[in-house]
Amino acid sequence: MQIQTQPNGFDLLLDGRLVLHHHSDAPCLFVGHGDARMDMYRGNFDIEDYVVERTPLRHAEVTETSDGIEIAFSAAEGQPARMVLTVSGDERNAVVFFNAHDLSVNRVWLRVQADADEHVWGGGEQMSYFDMRGRRFPLWTSEPGVGRDKTSEITFKADVTGKSGGDYWNTNYPQPTYVSSRRYALHVETTAYSAFDFRRDGFHEIEVWAVPERIELAARPSFVSLVEALSERFGRQPPLPEWVYGGAIIGLKDGARSYQRLENIIAAGTKVSGLWCEDWVGLRNTSFGARLFWDWKANEERYPGLRQRLAEMADRGIRFLGYVNPYLAVDGSLFPEADAAGYFAKNEAGETALVDFGEFDCGVVDFTNPDAVEWFAERVIGQNMIDFGLSGWMADFGEYLPIDVHLTNGVDARLMHNAWPTLWAEVNARAVESRGKTGEILFFMRAGYTGVQRYCPLLWAGDQSVDFTRHDGLVTVISGALSSGLLGNAYHHSDIGGYTSLFGNVRTAELIIRWAEMGAFTPVMRTHEGNRPRDNLQIDQDPEVLRHFARMTQVYVHLVPYLKSLVAEASSRGLPVQRPLFLHFEDDARTYAIQDAYLYGPDLLVAPVWQAGGTEWTTYLPAGAEWVHVWSGETYPGGADVTVAAPYGKPPVFHRAGSRFSELFAGLRNL
Amino acid sequence: MQIQTQPNGFDLLLDGRLVLHHHSDAPCLFVGHGDARMDMYRGNFDIEDYVVERTPLRHAEVTETSDGIEIAFSAAEGQPARMVLTVSGDERNAVVFFNAHDLSVNRVWLRVQADADEHVWGGGEQMSYFDMRGRRFPLWTSEPGVGRDKTSEITFKADVTGKSGGDYWNTNYPQPTYVSSRRYALHVETTAYSAFDFRRDGFHEIEVWAVPERIELAARPSFVSLVEALSERFGRQPPLPEWVYGGAIIGLKDGARSYQRLENIIAAGTKVSGLWCEDWVGLRNTSFGARLFWDWKANEERYPGLRQRLAEMADRGIRFLGYVNPYLAVDGSLFPEADAAGYFAKNEAGETALVDFGEFDCGVVDFTNPDAVEWFAERVIGQNMIDFGLSGWMADFGEYLPIDVHLTNGVDARLMHNAWPTLWAEVNARAVESRGKTGEILFFMRAGYTGVQRYCPLLWAGDQSVDFTRHDGLVTVISGALSSGLLGNAYHHSDIGGYTSLFGNVRTAELIIRWAEMGAFTPVMRTHEGNRPRDNLQIDQDPEVLRHFARMTQVYVHLVPYLKSLVAEASSRGLPVQRPLFLHFEDDARTYAIQDAYLYGPDLLVAPVWQAGGTEWTTYLPAGAEWVHVWSGETYPGGADVTVAAPYGKPPVFHRAGSRFSELFAGLRNL
Repeated sequence: MQIQTQPNGFDLLLDGRLVLHHHSDAPCLFVGHGDARMDMYRGNFDIEDYVVERTPLRHAEVTETSDGIEIAFSAAEGQPARMVLTVSGDERNAVVFFNAHDLSVNRVWLRVQADADEHVWGGGEQMSYFDMRGRRFPLWTSEPGVGRDKTSEITFKADVTGKSGGDYWNTNYPQPTYVSSRRYALHVETTAYSAFDFRRDGFHEIEVWAVPERIELAARPSFVSLVEALSERFGRQPPLPEWVYGGAIIGLKDGARSYQRLENIIAAGTKVSGLWCEDWVGLRNTSFGARLFWDWKANEERYPGLRQRLAEMADRGIRFLGYVNPYLAVDGSLFPEADAAGYFAKNEAGETALVDFGEFDCGVVDFTNPDAVEWFAERVIGQNMIDFGLSGWMADFGEYLPIDVHLTNGVDARLMHNAWPTLWAEVNARAVESRGKTGEILFFMRAGYTGVQRYCPLLWAGDQSVDFTRHDGLVTVISGALSSGLLGNAYHHSDIGGYTSLFGNVRTAELIIRWAEMGAFTPVMRTHEGNRPRDNLQIDQDPEVLRHFARMTQVYVHLVPYLKSLVAEASSRGLPVQRPLFLHFEDDARTYAIQDAYLYGPDLLVAPVWQAGGTEWTTYLPAGAEWVHVWSGETYPGGADVTVAAPYGKPPVFHRAGSRFSELFAGLRNL
Repeated sequence: MQIQTQPNGFDLLLDGRLVLHHHSDAPCLFVGHGDARMDMYRGNFDIEDYVVERTPLRHAEVTETSDGIEIAFSAAEGQPARMVLTVSGDERNAVVFFNAHDLSVNRVWLRVQADADEHVWGGGEQMSYFDMRGRRFPLWTSEPGVGRDKTSEITFKADVTGKSGGDYWNTNYPQPTYVSSRRYALHVETTAYSAFDFRRDGFHEIEVWAVPERIELAARPSFVSLVEALSERFGRQPPLPEWVYGGAIIGLKDGARSYQRLENIIAAGTKVSGLWCEDWVGLRNTSFGARLFWDWKANEERYPGLRQRLAEMADRGIRFLGYVNPYLAVDGSLFPEADAAGYFAKNEAGETALVDFGEFDCGVVDFTNPDAVEWFAERVIGQNMIDFGLSGWMADFGEYLPIDVHLTNGVDARLMHNAWPTLWAEVNARAVESRGKTGEILFFMRAGYTGVQRYCPLLWAGDQSVDFTRHDGLVTVISGALSSGLLGNAYHHSDIGGYTSLFGNVRTAELIIRWAEMGAFTPVMRTHEGNRPRDNLQIDQDPEVLRHFARMTQVYVHLVPYLKSLVAEASSRGLPVQRPLFLHFEDDARTYAIQDAYLYGPDLLVAPVWQAGGTEWTTYLPAGAEWVHVWSGETYPGGADVTVAAPYGKPPVFHRAGSRFSELFAGLRNL
């Protein structure tokens, strides 16, 4: 890190890269004041800022102090400093601390030097655009949206009926961190609403609706070393549990009927590692249909003798997984206990805040209260779930903290909203840890934020629509895996077959088939019945689909030796299992914007068929290797597009010629 | 006008009203710099501003000079002045001149003091919201939009297929002028993009994307005197031509078949003053259907012997009207003439700019070139239209000046875009004036901007959808009439039956019937076949509709003595024919937000049935008068809602008890 002062300005360089360029005519820092309107509708937000002030801080005075280099910014020479940045670090790393000398400041804009042909990735888990250049990305955890495309009929209907259509940037897991093709990463340490604006040629603009704690910068010679550094910074996940390698986790929510359906699925040749029943807590009937009963304990009525059942299944190598979220329904058994102890977030009047989830109200457990955390981890997850025998669960929500509740730590809920997913992950991780089951129990989350890496062993890609659409279908899972993977989330997976079925949009057999093909090349295979099981095709309803699915679980299991090597790599180096092509082919700039294919570890390239009706498929093979099509054994040169047949069951997958796993990969042809 | 200085601030008062309040902690002026993206799609715009700087000018120094009071604003004491306002005027009027001392400034925000319960009206011709309080209104002339409601299927489809759905604030005729319930008016003299933001309790915020020339303020004791003052400021229209009083103008575009259809309409008892054929210039076939041929002269093929015909019709008291707009199709006869003379706006390369209007290209006549104005007025309108014998025309467009053309006067097209409607009106008025036919020839426009009042004798409400919808149907015409009327546009009318039929939305008989009922109580009755005549019901296709329409023309003609008194009032005092209820009942604040009923002159209250299926109708009668229902003769007290029967042919209309036209109004019962 180096600061070069100039007349009327300075440059900040990191390992030779110009990161900040400041001149009184082109200032890098703006401060001001905003007055945002924020409305929440069941996890969807309508947010509009009224920027009252945005003042360029043209004058900068650079001085060296014992803490590092101090840069005092003011509107003009002779004016009082409004923001003082303190920069410290070494050649490749820098930390910029922000110190506002003006209490009115609640908006900060920082311009970071950019090249016109630069690419940027990250931003948490981005579902629409992996390469974020050319667009602006608000970073605020929320429902991801339905359709996520303002030109689609589904999004229009979702917007009109529930303000829930979403847009390209909506995600359960935002994170104000990006990786640049200039081989540096930038992270903003804040939980405030923020936005990355990558629309300008000459600079990126970082906007924070608060004075951020700090900005961290890291430059490295390669993308791999950058990802290693980020993974170290944000924390690594435990390895996958051994039991997962047994096959797919089958998602059913059919009460006691689920057992028999599972047997039929197994009988078809399916390799199964677990049965996941989110309805293990029982159901509630509402006018929207059956909903889960949000009182986190086994429901004897819906799953009679579950404790005995799951022990029996475990003996056969099949684990049982459940569901939990951070809310408690007022009519459940846990609510009164938490309410009496004062564990819920409060409303304006100091009473327990009740949140309407659609014909039922819930309390929000206040995870800024250490006693509430301890109670939820021990009493709810520890006793009712782990001690009961669950081997994992969906840890749902996390992105729903209402912005108007009052919390024990006294911090504005608008500043805690983004922090919530990580707090929620920590509660889960702590419960698992308390039973010594880290790396043995597998919970999975869609919500995330900075630091979730340390606690959440597995991401799931959220609630895709049951279709092949560009912004809410199968293909979005890849972007989600690649963006989150770069930021240190090694494990990612998705609902095979998608989840959201609304406005008459239902699953086709082809969709399940193509999704299962992709799922076999991810660290965890898991199915979901979706939000409307009765209206949608299930894997066990169509013999062709089931046969295909069973075969893909065999593919998954066949690849376990390779997958284990990737898990080892994730533990030791923090490299994600699913990787963008450029991670290992950084000299081939043609790979920089690819978001519909990925490397599954260093040696496999997977290009899922993500459109309907495809019988052949074209993908780009990076330069610097030769590639063997796993189903035909044909070898193709890198640095060119290749078109291969892509019938059901043979998704376009290539292995690197000369891989030490070549023999294993060749074995796929015999499945 | 009075300026009171205080420590760290000042107040500007106008006839006792606090208009500007400035304090270093609550500054009234912000300046800065923006970099807007503006994209145009056939008259629809996608505009997004990137506000680079918005600096509060906290420090104000007030000095008296010979020109008035000078207020020098700077960011802080001791800093150079960035904007100097010069304020002059008398007790009731003030002018504030803006003088930027900083060339970088291209955004100005001014906060005007507001009361929490204040109402504001104006903004040009506003179709969705007459009372603008609580919303923000960009002021930029454009297509009005289809549906104009982001929650409607029609708007969604129009947006997706043509970016043409529009929103509540889109209008052909914006004007940065408002009238406040605090009995003052504010006008911004600028042609730049601007916006009025009425969403805050304590202030209105005026935003201008340039340094405005000046802001004009007028305070008056009553709304009537305010409207008189605005009408004087912006200019008054000539009285309506005598021939208009003969009945309705029938819009047909059926070539020579129009004559016979007109005879059938007359035979049904319809009072007719004119035949309006926009296809008088002939047609062009495109894949979208038939379009007008944009070469402004009579088309002998489509209207054989038109010159003779219109003379014959005139002898029977029926005038002929045509159509013109400011573009010339490249394949017409006028284009080469204008092109050779260099009368068109130019592109980047200095060549004639060609604008694609959908399978045909046009040149844009450059009305900043005095020679081009003269040519269009004399050669096109003068010779081809007036001398040919037309008695009027639709002067279409005006809101389409592309923002990337180069103009003779050297001003950026983005600054001339809003000026265009008034220039276009002036060209028309000048042509009429050149033949000494002001007040005899009637042209009508939908586009407008500041100053259009002086030139355009009649507004038409644009292109409503053929339905009863809240934001694009019949009811929007009332808001358009009332808002534009307050700003000095005395004459307003609309397409009876609406215009826009898209996505399967077609006219019902009920719609034509209800629209004709309203049209009888406006200064001019005129029908339109709509954009898709073949798909939509026409007035002469259904005997019940035609009978009803004929009767409503009789109502119109019956009211002519009263209408003439209103025209006289418009000429002498500038009061509009259609008036908001509060104009004459300003002590009754319940009238302030009413936008679905209006006063037709001082003595008639008209509450058009604007929803389908209504057999009775409820409206509010203002306090301070007694009201006689014209169809039943029953008297109702003011200050309360009244519900009356509203069968076809008897729209809810009331006259003021004791009106000097009481006998005339009573005569309506015999029609």
